[in-house]
Amino acid sequence: MSNKRKKQVTIYDLATELNVAPSTVSRALKDHFSIGKETITAVKDLARKRGYRTNTLASSLRTQESKTIGVLVSWINRPFISSLIHGVEAAARESGYNVIISQSQDSYENEVANAKTLFSSRIHALVVSLAVETTQYDHLQEIITSGTPVVFVDRVPTDLEGDRVMIDNEKTARMATQHLIDQGCRRIALFRGSAQQVIYRDREAGYRAALEAGGLEIDESLIIAFDRLTVEEGTRLTEQLFQLPNPPDGIFSSNDSAAVGAIKYARANGIDVPRQLAVIGFNDDPVCEIIEPQLSSVTHPAVEMGRLALHQALRIADPETPVADRLVKLETQLIPRASSLRKPLIDG
Amino acid sequence: MSNKRKKQVTIYDLATELNVAPSTVSRALKDHFSIGKETITAVKDLARKRGYRTNTLASSLRTQESKTIGVLVSWINRPFISSLIHGVEAAARESGYNVIISQSQDSYENEVANAKTLFSSRIHALVVSLAVETTQYDHLQEIITSGTPVVFVDRVPTDLEGDRVMIDNEKTARMATQHLIDQGCRRIALFRGSAQQVIYRDREAGYRAALEAGGLEIDESLIIAFDRLTVEEGTRLTEQLFQLPNPPDGIFSSNDSAAVGAIKYARANGIDVPRQLAVIGFNDDPVCEIIEPQLSSVTHPAVEMGRLALHQALRIADPETPVADRLVKLETQLIPRASSLRKPLIDG
Repeated sequence: MSNKRKKQVTIYDLATELNVAPSTVSRALKDHFSIGKETITAVKDLARKRGYRTNTLASSLRTQESKTIGVLVSWINRPFISSLIHGVEAAARESGYNVIISQSQDSYENEVANAKTLFSSRIHALVVSLAVETTQYDHLQEIITSGTPVVFVDRVPTDLEGDRVMIDNEKTARMATQHLIDQGCRRIALFRGSAQQVIYRDREAGYRAALEAGGLEIDESLIIAFDRLTVEEGTRLTEQLFQLPNPPDGIFSSNDSAAVGAIKYARANGIDVPRQLAVIGFNDDPVCEIIEPQLSSVTHPAVEMGRLALHQALRIADPETPVADRLVKLETQLIPRASSLRKPLIDG
Repeated sequence: MSNKRKKQVTIYDLATELNVAPSTVSRALKDHFSIGKETITAVKDLARKRGYRTNTLASSLRTQESKTIGVLVSWINRPFISSLIHGVEAAARESGYNVIISQSQDSYENEVANAKTLFSSRIHALVVSLAVETTQYDHLQEIITSGTPVVFVDRVPTDLEGDRVMIDNEKTARMATQHLIDQGCRRIALFRGSAQQVIYRDREAGYRAALEAGGLEIDESLIIAFDRLTVEEGTRLTEQLFQLPNPPDGIFSSNDSAAVGAIKYARANGIDVPRQLAVIGFNDDPVCEIIEPQLSSVTHPAVEMGRLALHQALRIADPETPVADRLVKLETQLIPRASSLRKPLIDG
């Protein structure tokens, strides 16, 4: 292989080499009925040999379609996100589509650049979970306006029309907080994600509703604003909580990573989990079964959300089918484990 | 928003609406010197309003370039892979490129489809880490032949010419196995990844070399062939090992996930780690510091590998610069933790 960048092979190059008309090459590559089998074979063999790249954009310009789905997410390494992508991919493959992915790393600027890159790849539809920083949506409005189906998942925009697939974050947070109250916790801290995203505001609302329903005082000093909800942030902010004159006896964390950070702090400082500090996370990531004690959590049906988002996108794309649901809400489930179980669960 | 898929907005639509020539619209969108500022503003405003999508392929056909880098990997949720992607992205952004990602989920068939999708997106260069199933490379040969720079990372092909960025897997595996011998292990099992990939064959060679150098017998019943090196597989195959008449006193695992599975089995069955069973993994994933006892490992400089792969790709792409290194090998490091430390480390 030479280190020179080779000139792109064209239909004209193939035609010259085979001594046929360019239109013959073009038709042969598409198995056109007017071209003989031998010619088709000869053209395709040479095209392969010379590394001819089909001009898929030209054909997508004609058909207004490509067979690619774009996925724009925050961090591909978060288990919730990678499961979501897995769901989109599984459903896309069943429908004959391929998936390309782009991650914003929670930066608004990256998200705008990624949206443009995916859009320029002439995707058929786009599935989006917003960067934590994103509160303006021009870059997505533009894609919606162009007629490309866009479906939002989990971290959805507030004032932008569009299809959404999500869980009931308030109800789920209320269930998790209620579980800590049932286990005897009286001073429950909240690890709150960025208030810029509606899902975290909803989780806070659920936490507040559960405390009120349980007749417990809401202590604002126990509501901790997180930036990225990482393990390190969880450890650091738990340390701060335990410097309060009256530290918490329970933590409801808006994700599992920050809850793992809390358990790591407790373990390193001789705080008994769950007796002195009961902890519950959110998402039911695989780490819940790796950490000691195992972490209680609530499910976040990521794979199903991905599948539904893809189906929703294809439904919008089909002008013959009316769009049924603009908002799909999925059910969640409490998964109690050792990190919060102080007493046996009462069934029912 | 109507549920009908909208017709793609063209330059002609914009020209008609503004009552100017299509060539004026086209030039205005490119800030051509011949077009007045007011016209440029009017055209761009309308283009945004109507969701006009720049025909980037048409321009990339002209310039033979796009500003997109494709990344084709096995599983985006493996920490090694997501760090690798992070490295590619960081270097790409510095050079004004954007990254689109596609995962094969270790399936050869998916990898072929993904390679075609990325190639059709007219990427400028491609960074590839192979699916565990992949032993044929036609889909990649075609891309290389076309002149698109392809750089292989970690899981590289055997009989395909091309640039590679990797670690010395044999040397690193020898170091990990030697560490277990130094800690007093005499019956060391190997968790071997699929023999279809050269990196796992190299790790096996390093394991064998260390045992031989240490004067230890190689017991083939302790070399365990893994399929995907998951936590579940690690737990299941450790159980099998402990049904042997003479079970191992150490495990060198070809990744951290399978090693975590081994520790989970030991913990559930009252086997003391490290005294009865010393364990060391590979990659130094974040889970190493979450599991109890913490898992010894060897570093796999994923971010640096990603950065170097991107730089290598851009160097190949530039016909003015000669390609310096066809194979880049990075250094690795032993990270001893509680899962293997039976005695204090001797410095040096």
